Amino acid sequence: MKIALGQLNIQAGNIDANLASMKQMVMDAKAQGAALIIFPEMAVSGYLLGDKLLQRGFVDRLLEANETIKSWSKDIGIIWGNISHMEGAKANRDGRFNRMNSAYFAYENEWVDKVNGLNPGLYHKHCFPDYRFFDDSRIFKSGVDISLENDQSIDHGIEPFIFKHQDETVRIGLEVCEDLWSKDYTIDPTALYIQKGVDFIINISSSPWTLNKEQSRVKRIQEHVSAHQEKMVPIIYVNAAGMQNNGKNVLVFDGDSTIYGKDGNVQAECPDNFEQYLGIFDHHERYPLPIQSDKLLNALVHAIREFDKQLLKGKAPWIIGLSGGLDSSVNAALLVLALGKDRVIGYNMASRYNQDKTISIAATSAERLGIEYHEGSIEALVQSTVQTLHEYAIDAVEGLAFENIQARIRGHLLSSFASYKGGVICNNGNKVECALGYATLYGDTIGALSPLGDCTKMDLFHLAKRLNELFDSEIISSDLIPTIEANTIHFGLAPSAELRTNQLDPMKWVYHDWLVQYFTQYPSHHLLEWLEIYANDQWQALEIAPWIRYYHLDEPMNFVEDIQWFIKAWHFAVFKRIQFPPIVTVSRGSFGYDYRESQLPYVNDSVMEALLKRILEKGGQS
Amino acid sequence: MKIALGQLNIQAGNIDANLASMKQMVMDAKAQGAALIIFPEMAVSGYLLGDKLLQRGFVDRLLEANETIKSWSKDIGIIWGNISHMEGAKANRDGRFNRMNSAYFAYENEWVDKVNGLNPGLYHKHCFPDYRFFDDSRIFKSGVDISLENDQSIDHGIEPFIFKHQDETVRIGLEVCEDLWSKDYTIDPTALYIQKGVDFIINISSSPWTLNKEQSRVKRIQEHVSAHQEKMVPIIYVNAAGMQNNGKNVLVFDGDSTIYGKDGNVQAECPDNFEQYLGIFDHHERYPLPIQSDKLLNALVHAIREFDKQLLKGKAPWIIGLSGGLDSSVNAALLVLALGKDRVIGYNMASRYNQDKTISIAATSAERLGIEYHEGSIEALVQSTVQTLHEYAIDAVEGLAFENIQARIRGHLLSSFASYKGGVICNNGNKVECALGYATLYGDTIGALSPLGDCTKMDLFHLAKRLNELFDSEIISSDLIPTIEANTIHFGLAPSAELRTNQLDPMKWVYHDWLVQYFTQYPSHHLLEWLEIYANDQWQALEIAPWIRYYHLDEPMNFVEDIQWFIKAWHFAVFKRIQFPPIVTVSRGSFGYDYRESQLPYVNDSVMEALLKRILEKGGQS
Repeated sequence: MKIALGQLNIQAGNIDANLASMKQMVMDAKAQGAALIIFPEMAVSGYLLGDKLLQRGFVDRLLEANETIKSWSKDIGIIWGNISHMEGAKANRDGRFNRMNSAYFAYENEWVDKVNGLNPGLYHKHCFPDYRFFDDSRIFKSGVDISLENDQSIDHGIEPFIFKHQDETVRIGLEVCEDLWSKDYTIDPTALYIQKGVDFIINISSSPWTLNKEQSRVKRIQEHVSAHQEKMVPIIYVNAAGMQNNGKNVLVFDGDSTIYGKDGNVQAECPDNFEQYLGIFDHHERYPLPIQSDKLLNALVHAIREFDKQLLKGKAPWIIGLSGGLDSSVNAALLVLALGKDRVIGYNMASRYNQDKTISIAATSAERLGIEYHEGSIEALVQSTVQTLHEYAIDAVEGLAFENIQARIRGHLLSSFASYKGGVICNNGNKVECALGYATLYGDTIGALSPLGDCTKMDLFHLAKRLNELFDSEIISSDLIPTIEANTIHFGLAPSAELRTNQLDPMKWVYHDWLVQYFTQYPSHHLLEWLEIYANDQWQALEIAPWIRYYHLDEPMNFVEDIQWFIKAWHFAVFKRIQFPPIVTVSRGSFGYDYRESQLPYVNDSVMEALLKRILEKGGQS
Repeated sequence: MKIALGQLNIQAGNIDANLASMKQMVMDAKAQGAALIIFPEMAVSGYLLGDKLLQRGFVDRLLEANETIKSWSKDIGIIWGNISHMEGAKANRDGRFNRMNSAYFAYENEWVDKVNGLNPGLYHKHCFPDYRFFDDSRIFKSGVDISLENDQSIDHGIEPFIFKHQDETVRIGLEVCEDLWSKDYTIDPTALYIQKGVDFIINISSSPWTLNKEQSRVKRIQEHVSAHQEKMVPIIYVNAAGMQNNGKNVLVFDGDSTIYGKDGNVQAECPDNFEQYLGIFDHHERYPLPIQSDKLLNALVHAIREFDKQLLKGKAPWIIGLSGGLDSSVNAALLVLALGKDRVIGYNMASRYNQDKTISIAATSAERLGIEYHEGSIEALVQSTVQTLHEYAIDAVEGLAFENIQARIRGHLLSSFASYKGGVICNNGNKVECALGYATLYGDTIGALSPLGDCTKMDLFHLAKRLNELFDSEIISSDLIPTIEANTIHFGLAPSAELRTNQLDPMKWVYHDWLVQYFTQYPSHHLLEWLEIYANDQWQALEIAPWIRYYHLDEPMNFVEDIQWFIKAWHFAVFKRIQFPPIVTVSRGSFGYDYRESQLPYVNDSVMEALLKRILEKGGQS
């Protein structure tokens, strides 16, 4: 049976556009002889829509679309994800309008029957992710709840579909995204389908890509193979492509739709390059695999490109402050890759503290990228600020407050450039700065998008090297990229905010990057866990151990001093993160609506104090 | 039986402080002869902690506290809310560490038994709110899931506790917060307890106050009375006091712990003034009720005071821009009420467009409030910006971009004042401005807290009048407070941003305020619903109808023009709201993590277009 994998670039909130793309793909698939075409989870509306999916008017609009899609099903089975509503059933838990996250199945203008004859053409998602950026339980009612409220066994909704096409009849198990990741749920739809007897399982997903997601999926499939042995069936996974956001995080969808054989091996695969693709495969055959893409770089480029296309109509100029440092250089190169050089304008805004060297790096980067570039000074505005502050009885203008003035003046100028050009600002912060609040609110925290806010400095070194290779030119000065060898790190030009003379970033690179990931990546860790590990000498077995020694943190006094500085900085930076721009999420835990934070007091917790004391006493003993 | 209602002002994240307060309350209750003391849901850690409750180290710390609290239970039963963990059970759905939102019950250093002898001293919350700012399913595993994974009936965990104190024995049904609001859930713990036979039900809550919450609770209790008639039992409701936040929203807890009799009437009640309180009552008796507080005003004052106490150690000066407009005048008065006049510094930052009249209002307000106050000009900085922009090849400096420069310079100055004074900025935006993006990002959108970001202009008029009464002085100029009579509105001085000559705010007050609430209040409405109502002439029956006529929006052409302006403004302001400060939530739907928004393209949706066309044709016919 020829099956079309409709790896749709879902345009969140744009129903007409999604329907138009789906219709075109259905026609193309039919023309190529496919018996069946499969679209991702929540293909009609998108998946990350905030509370729009709670609004009856919007949901009604989505429900109407089902009849339209069904009407395209002459000679071809169509499976798609959309919201559903069950008139007369109990409300969702919020006490209002009930909504399910469902898979629809139509053929020959009819809803396709299940073995038990109930609810033709409709399957409701059973397993609800409520971690990271997922909020399924907020929006949807699960298949489990429907069974429970009707006093049925909880597997009642897991029933194979019977699909007869020409002279072939197949039994299909249809499930939605998390239903495959059922290990920790009270119900396992995949296992139930296999037990009830199906020819293959179709999993429709809207599964954002974050680091190593591919490996996790392969592992999950292998667990099913181990559990079901020769009873295992092929799994056809169809994922969305493109970009969607939840306000604070910009998520990318890599596609990578795949047919897994009974043995868990890949039989056929669509590209994983975040792009829309129609893959037509016979599910009995084995196909050559596409080239795996450079995932992190592609994810960032794609996020920028789709953000620009969807929200800025692909027209607004992108304004970027080019300091001659690593982060802004990498960002400028990413913008040019995503949008072309004519869409990017770089600005260098020097103060008395900026070195000629970094200014010249900025100019060289801009020149090599071929972007419009302007240089100027912030000194007049800084002086005018100082004068005005005198008028408000503030005389001594110095220290951190004076540094912040410089950063905010740059933010003000970038905002003014963006206003006049009708453009948007690219934020240049990285994840470590964001974690430690090493940025000035309304200064360098501003922007419409933070492409690098989920990248550590280590990620940036990697990206810088790859970008120079791709452009075949030293776009990013090699002075900015350190050599990391034998557990030592050496910079030509070490990272600096250049807000005072001889200022250097206070981060202990590699170690602090690692700590930031340790504390944010799902499931995140608490300080007490890290102190326990150190107090019990378990750190020595970790891959980060050489760097702990490199920075002399194997000396407990140094360790305590550093971790207190680190955790306080982290803690007091929450208020800055609350007002940070949307971050492109690429790791297994990014700031925003992914790793969620309340603003809490900094507390000298008694258990923490006891642990610190234990660590310091250890130092005394050695 | 004398029962102590421990209405704790929970300090989120401060375990030591909560334990100390609880211990003191236990001793006080014992001294006053109470047999039982009851604390709120999640009393040890707080309830709104972001992802901290996913972190094993933090949870372990909380679990240890249970033994400590149990050790205080000599001669007094203690009930408290805390997280629990069940070793060996299935993980939470996120696949890691399982955690329940539980009620604990200890007496005489033992866990109190249930009728069936299982799980002494422990009850797990069954009903999980996942709407608005609640994310229970993200953090906790429910009692329902525990029953299901052990192949038990879902009511297995609802079992009365047997509490023997001196010569009295009572059967107690113990439940947590949402368990009372079970109407739309698959399980109804309150009903099950009544069926199984209890003397009374204890509901421990951490239930943030938003508008009309008291009435909703009374209504819910009455529904139980109707359902169970003479079988109904008293319900003892113990709620938290104080303030907690989720990053984007600052929530206040009104306390208002109450004993409801079998007939649903209030027998005894703690104050609803957001303050900690220990109420000791005999549950058979009826007590005089406390005076109901001025809820909205109190909520705002309390939010500011607790935010300041918990996060700023009650020391930092609060910096506020005083324009002489309504919003900043109201905010200044709220700050003074919450913190005292010595903690507030007002700044007037005039440009050539500010009228003498408003500057003089600002000065008068400040004088009457008795706060430190400074006046100065932004003209030099605006001119310096223009000069610097010339340097960057931007010549024509005018229009909206020029207005934004003025706003951002004010933001820059306020930030500088805050830096030098070691203070924080009070944001002055209201909900209608926030909805329509009528503010300059990094200009008037800045601040550490937005006390008024969930208040409409109507709320502000109400607050202004109340504040003038409270201060017994015209703190807020009567020119700023309109007279609203016979469905007309008249201002002495109409709201203006004063960024150009004769500028007036474009809002249609009353009607647009109403629309903002219509679109945000839970469950929020979609534009298509409003257009349907208008197209079907159903608006005439609404309380807002006279204002629709007042603004001549009964003429379809005017209506369409206005709603298109409104919805586009709303839509394009999402990017500003993403970077907005934390908002004090007081309505039934506030921006932030309450009403959640993705950034989506503005789409000329085909169904919307058809509706607009239908409306316009209606105009042609009339």
